[in-house]
Amino acid sequence: MNDLLQKPRTVYVSRTIEFNAAHRLFNPSATEEENVATYGKCSNHNGHGHNYRLNITIRGIVDHKSGFLFDLKELKNILKEEIMERFDHKHLNHDVPELRDCVPTTEVLAVLIWDILEERLRTLNNPEIALHEVHLHETGKNAVRYFGE
Amino acid sequence: MNDLLQKPRTVYVSRTIEFNAAHRLFNPSATEEENVATYGKCSNHNGHGHNYRLNITIRGIVDHKSGFLFDLKELKNILKEEIMERFDHKHLNHDVPELRDCVPTTEVLAVLIWDILEERLRTLNNPEIALHEVHLHETGKNAVRYFGE
Amino acid sequence: MNDLLQKPRTVYVSRTIEFNAAHRLFNPSATEEENVATYGKCSNHNGHGHNYRLNITIRGIVDHKSGFLFDLKELKNILKEEIMERFDHKHLNHDVPELRDCVPTTEVLAVLIWDILEERLRTLNNPEIALHEVHLHETGKNAVRYFGE
Amino acid sequence: MNDLLQKPRTVYVSRTIEFNAAHRLFNPSATEEENVATYGKCSNHNGHGHNYRLNITIRGIVDHKSGFLFDLKELKNILKEEIMERFDHKHLNHDVPELRDCVPTTEVLAVLIWDILEERLRTLNNPEIALHEVHLHETGKNAVRYFGE
Amino acid sequence: MNDLLQKPRTVYVSRTIEFNAAHRLFNPSATEEENVATYGKCSNHNGHGHNYRLNITIRGIVDHKSGFLFDLKELKNILKEEIMERFDHKHLNHDVPELRDCVPTTEVLAVLIWDILEERLRTLNNPEIALHEVHLHETGKNAVRYFGE
Amino acid sequence: MNDLLQKPRTVYVSRTIEFNAAHRLFNPSATEEENVATYGKCSNHNGHGHNYRLNITIRGIVDHKSGFLFDLKELKNILKEEIMERFDHKHLNHDVPELRDCVPTTEVLAVLIWDILEERLRTLNNPEIALHEVHLHETGKNAVRYFGE
Repeated sequence: MNDLLQKPRTVYVSRTIEFNAAHRLFNPSATEEENVATYGKCSNHNGHGHNYRLNITIRGIVDHKSGFLFDLKELKNILKEEIMERFDHKHLNHDVPELRDCVPTTEVLAVLIWDILEERLRTLNNPEIALHEVHLHETGKNAVRYFGE
Repeated sequence: MNDLLQKPRTVYVSRTIEFNAAHRLFNPSATEEENVATYGKCSNHNGHGHNYRLNITIRGIVDHKSGFLFDLKELKNILKEEIMERFDHKHLNHDVPELRDCVPTTEVLAVLIWDILEERLRTLNNPEIALHEVHLHETGKNAVRYFGE
Repeated sequence: MNDLLQKPRTVYVSRTIEFNAAHRLFNPSATEEENVATYGKCSNHNGHGHNYRLNITIRGIVDHKSGFLFDLKELKNILKEEIMERFDHKHLNHDVPELRDCVPTTEVLAVLIWDILEERLRTLNNPEIALHEVHLHETGKNAVRYFGE
Repeated sequence: MNDLLQKPRTVYVSRTIEFNAAHRLFNPSATEEENVATYGKCSNHNGHGHNYRLNITIRGIVDHKSGFLFDLKELKNILKEEIMERFDHKHLNHDVPELRDCVPTTEVLAVLIWDILEERLRTLNNPEIALHEVHLHETGKNAVRYFGE
Repeated sequence: MNDLLQKPRTVYVSRTIEFNAAHRLFNPSATEEENVATYGKCSNHNGHGHNYRLNITIRGIVDHKSGFLFDLKELKNILKEEIMERFDHKHLNHDVPELRDCVPTTEVLAVLIWDILEERLRTLNNPEIALHEVHLHETGKNAVRYFGE
Repeated sequence: MNDLLQKPRTVYVSRTIEFNAAHRLFNPSATEEENVATYGKCSNHNGHGHNYRLNITIRGIVDHKSGFLFDLKELKNILKEEIMERFDHKHLNHDVPELRDCVPTTEVLAVLIWDILEERLRTLNNPEIALHEVHLHETGKNAVRYFGE
């Protein structure tokens, strides 16, 4: 089976999920004025929110037998446990311990998601796969990509 | 000019905008348990948020001279003043006086937007146009339409 | 609570789901040539498939207490049981008993989905709500709407 | 076959196409100033352009034998001849005789497309089908629907 | 003409097409139980299907005279002959000889498309262009990218 | 604050805008026949147009204090001044001096946008950020990426 895979093929498999969260861009060690100057209406006192769209890419060599890079059911599970349960229907400033001392910008959130998934994927002890990219869309217009560097 | 408009033509013109807001589905006159039973994770204490996509439709007879139903610049202005300034980057439960005694579900929000725009459009004293539809998308999967009935 | 709902408000709530299915447009009571003449490449012997996108709309008066038209968790459940389990990852010609004597065009599939959901919703004995529209997209270009008439 | 169609079923079948055209909103019987006041940057001298997305809906009773409302290949043909050849890669003000005395607003263009398709469909002498809706998107934010009234 | 191209400019030109196909994830050299364990509902006996969206990217130096990387009409032709005729409205397990001994996962399909297009583009004897990326979306949520490595 | 940023993190921040423009693919130093052979209907005399969607990516190390790569308000400003004012509601062949001696293909336009933004960003004297990618979509099917090489 899968003669096409007799030579190793490095593919990039991506999965997109969406979570809905509130946040406020506010640095408590700065003054109200500095916060408004930096974050504008994103620092409004009671916060606002987004439908975050998250696209995760894993890189590796396709398994010769299954034709999969990685068991999609396992990836769905990881994303449910690590991302959906942590961020979905939450307030990023108040409900996510890892963000307690952070301004929850899209940049910071993308970096955190990388750190969480990279550590989790390492526990699989599968040398054939690696986290490649976290691509986080805050709106249809703004997005951040992070490659772990 | 515009011979095609010599007989009256009733068109439906729509404009789509997006606002980012936080909310919490919570009825203060019910118990915590009742709220969880009704609203599930949408009643999480600190709220969550959405990129609301709002599609407004106005119905009327095309103006013979301009070929427009309605001056788009004026519509943009109305949507900016009535919708964006009221809802964008706000917390629906705390920052919108009109929602103070409401559970800010998508249904309630669509009804409120209708009431606001319908009243504002009436001040234009233009008998040729009428608000036709408020179509509010909370996510890519859930939406509510309201026609004022 | 929910003063905005003191007068009855009739809203249209829609939910979108996606299912992936194979089908073949083929009428066994016609000749091969007639099938090709009518259905073209859609009658290819081994079938093909689609990511069907289904948008269901329910119409009714918003509940004064909850601010919901209908419990979204219950709607999700109904769509899972009636639509996803019946159609997702299935071959419409072979795996769906209700379609055994049908050519599974988008029109026929939309009509069937209406009949299934209309009957199921009637079992709820909720006079406030009614199925309003089945909107089924076969591709990004082709879609069928059915209103039960 | 098609027992589901033993009672007549009225469906709404839609097809989406895209054409790329230039236009300028300019009324030659008005002054330059009046044009700028009405049309703003849309009246810039050399014109601009859009990827128009056109969604056409036909209403009628599903054919009992084929399970189709209407032969999609025939609809594709009609849209190619009447819409694509007339509007695609054209300048609406200069290349479309039917628009010669019109300001090519989205409203006017939707009305013209209705008139063209309604006349063409009438030549089919098929009493079971009728043009139902022309839905023309000028951008992702602005659209006009026309139902022939 | 095209002074901007006096120094060589390496661009990445992409074209998106869609094909509708059925498939079944099933490895005939494994047991039914192993197939279900690996592929879940994707191994259902009669198969299912998708609207595959394929995004092809070609890399190279823009031609100084035409301002094109590559004649788009020629690329459209190649995609029609090599992709649409081979995969569109087909059953991947039964109708595509190149996949006869493969499990038609998205990974395997992306690799096959690369091999086909890479070989075809080599026949053009144009040293200025090279296939850069095959990006294949099985659904709106799952996609595979392959760069030929 | 922002402990996650204590080690430097290189992110890629992108912003999407849309502008509507007319163009004609025509090389005045070639014959009419050569133009038709190269550009087909894209060389039609009066031009046509597009809703160009432009996705700009900036690469750099996230600022430890703000959690931003770059002040989004400043980026919006730059895109308004350099892109929207230059291209939106314009005819690329007639209204854009930088394109006077160019055939305004998507490739050429992407290269020009890179040159403009790269020069503008250099005036900021911010060594932490660099233009990474210009991704220009002419339609939903055709796009060009340019990385400045």
